[in-house]
Order: sequence, then structure tokens, then C-alpha cells
Amino acid sequence: MKIIIIGATGTIGKRVTAALSKEHEVIKVGSKSGDLQVDISSPESIEAFYKQAGAFDALVCVSGDAHFGPFATMTDADFRKGVNSKLMGQVNLVLIGQRYINPKGSFTLTSGSLATDPVAYGANASTLNGAINSFVIASAIELENGVRINAVAPGVVEDSPAYFPYFPGDIPVSMERVTQAYVKSAFGAQTGQVYLVK
Amino acid sequence: MKIIIIGATGTIGKRVTAALSKEHEVIKVGSKSGDLQVDISSPESIEAFYKQAGAFDALVCVSGDAHFGPFATMTDADFRKGVNSKLMGQVNLVLIGQRYINPKGSFTLTSGSLATDPVAYGANASTLNGAINSFVIASAIELENGVRINAVAPGVVEDSPAYFPYFPGDIPVSMERVTQAYVKSAFGAQTGQVYLVK
Repeated sequence: MKIIIIGATGTIGKRVTAALSKEHEVIKVGSKSGDLQVDISSPESIEAFYKQAGAFDALVCVSGDAHFGPFATMTDADFRKGVNSKLMGQVNLVLIGQRYINPKGSFTLTSGSLATDPVAYGANASTLNGAINSFVIASAIELENGVRINAVAPGVVEDSPAYFPYFPGDIPVSMERVTQAYVKSAFGAQTGQVYLVK
Repeated sequence: MKIIIIGATGTIGKRVTAALSKEHEVIKVGSKSGDLQVDISSPESIEAFYKQAGAFDALVCVSGDAHFGPFATMTDADFRKGVNSKLMGQVNLVLIGQRYINPKGSFTLTSGSLATDPVAYGANASTLNGAINSFVIASAIELENGVRINAVAPGVVEDSPAYFPYFPGDIPVSMERVTQAYVKSAFGAQTGQVYLVK
């Protein structure tokens, strides 16, 4: 299988890349590093990227920024940064990618536990995560040629200690459990699922 | 109570307006009609609107457009029209409105059953509805001075027969049940809730 990993050098991305590289051809993609580059906030960059990458069997996106900060002072501009990246970035990877993916291929996006389990400062991330979860269940019923789509919704992960103070009482999720959720999505047969790893 | 209704002349809006006008001061707001006008896709228009409207006790938004169409040909531009209206329009009504609302006031937004129960052609609406649901549960834990926020998530409503073909097998929801969900949000004591009316 030819697998594209967007955000291959990130905290979760490098684990997913290691797990999937064992038996498959993996194209590591970053905004500045990797085998190929893409700016997911730009539809033009995504289109150019797919033209370079060619047909593929699975895409895993572990990229996308959200704004963290107090709700009382959050602005339209703060909020839109996340919308353009974590929401529209992932949406456009699928809208455009559906013309490049092989039959029976799969998309795996990343949302997060904040969709249903919010924390202070996290309203933007919660919103984008909820959006991605609903995007996945809706697009799954329209994608053609047996193409599947799922989302992984991780809680705070053990390799991101900088985030621990924002998640009081949440037990950080092991990298192994998070990684296996992406494996389940890419190699399993399910579609329209949100895999909550919490 | 002084209640602002955004989208007061719409299919749901006129019912909500009739129900709330009996015992309260209602400011009817539309994009072109009503007591005051606002373009919710523009943060500048929202700011100017609140300056005109002054302090208030409850805001009910029953406005916001989404794109309906086949997923196979959906574009970034199609998708963003809904993002700018139904998502960012409602988000900005709260981000900006939190500086104008009275203590113990409430915001009631509109999502929809498509967040969790998708139909063909509805991927944009599903996504925006899921986003609004998660925005509500997240912002509820940060809003100050006892301000509350909820969402109403209606299925297809009996006064919108043009949409019936898109919702095969769904029994249209009575206008009375939908209207009462807005009443429950504005006059009840709950916050961070999504009232599914299906």
C-alpha cells in the first residue's frame, strides 16, 4: 500500500509513521520537512501536492492547528486560524483527495476528545474537533468506489507534557494506543467512525 | 426580558418570535428586514449591530446558511460559504455578544440533527452542526457572570416541505416541538446543552 502521512514529524505523526513504514510505502509530508511539502491551509497547495504525490491507497492526517486561549478575549481572527487549518485543511484534503485516491482507499483525519469533553481555553479546538467528527460520518455515506473515512479523537497524549496542565485529571493516553487507532482506521474495514482514544 | 432573535422572519424564526413576544420585549433581526439588521457573516456588522441593540437578556439565533450538494463535486468555496455563515456567524454572535449580554443572560444557537444523523448532500451542514454543538458545550464552561449557552438541533421541520426529499424516512418535526426547545433554552436554567428535536 502507498500511504500518505500529513504531519509525519509531529508528536503523533512520527509514531504513526514508524508503525506504518514497517510493511508499506510511506510518503512523509510536512509543511517544511518530509518527502513532500504541503500547506494544508491552502487549497492550491493541496491540489499541487496531490499532483506530485500521485494515486495513493491511504491518507492519514495528523496535522492541523487550533487556537488555545481564554474565551473572554477570543477574536474572530483567533478562531479562524484554527478553522483554516484543522477544519478546512482536513476537509480540503478529502474534497480534493477524493479525485486522487485509489478505489477502496481510506482517509483518516484527526479530531480530539475536546469535541465532547471540553476544557478551559479549548473552545476553538472543541469546535473544530466536533466539526471533523460530523464531517467524517457525513462524507462516509457519499464517498464513492469503496473509499472509507474515519477520524481518530485522542485525549491529551503522554508525549505532550506541555498540554498536561490544560487537562486536569485526564490520564495522558499512551502513544501506542493512539497509534493503533490510526492503524485500525487505515487497515480495518470500517467507515464513518470516530475512534475516541481516552 | 429583552430578547434578540436573529432570523426572526425565517421558517423557525417566526414561530419562535411569536412564542417569545407574548410576554417579553423582542427585537426582531434579519439580514434585510426586522427591527434591526445584521450580516452575521461579517464581524464588523455584528459589532455595529450590538452597539445599536444595547444590553440584552437573551439572544436566539435561527439564522445561518449551509451548502447542500453532492460531495463528489463540493469545493472549498462551497464549503466556506457555510463556514462563514452558520459556523462563524453564530460563533461571532457569541464572541462579540459576551461583551453586551446582561449577567445571567443566555445565547441559544441552532445546529441540526445532521450532526449525528447525516444524509446525502448534507456533508457541509453536518460539519457545521457538529461544530456548533461542540462550541456550545465548550463555551458554556468559560462564559462569565452566569451567562448560559445552548443549541437547538432540529431535524427536518414540518414547515419546510422542500427539504423532505433529502430526509427519506424522517418524520418531519412539529413546529411546536422545535419552538419549545428554544423556549426551554432561553427560560430554563441549563447551560452547555444540545436539545435534539427529532
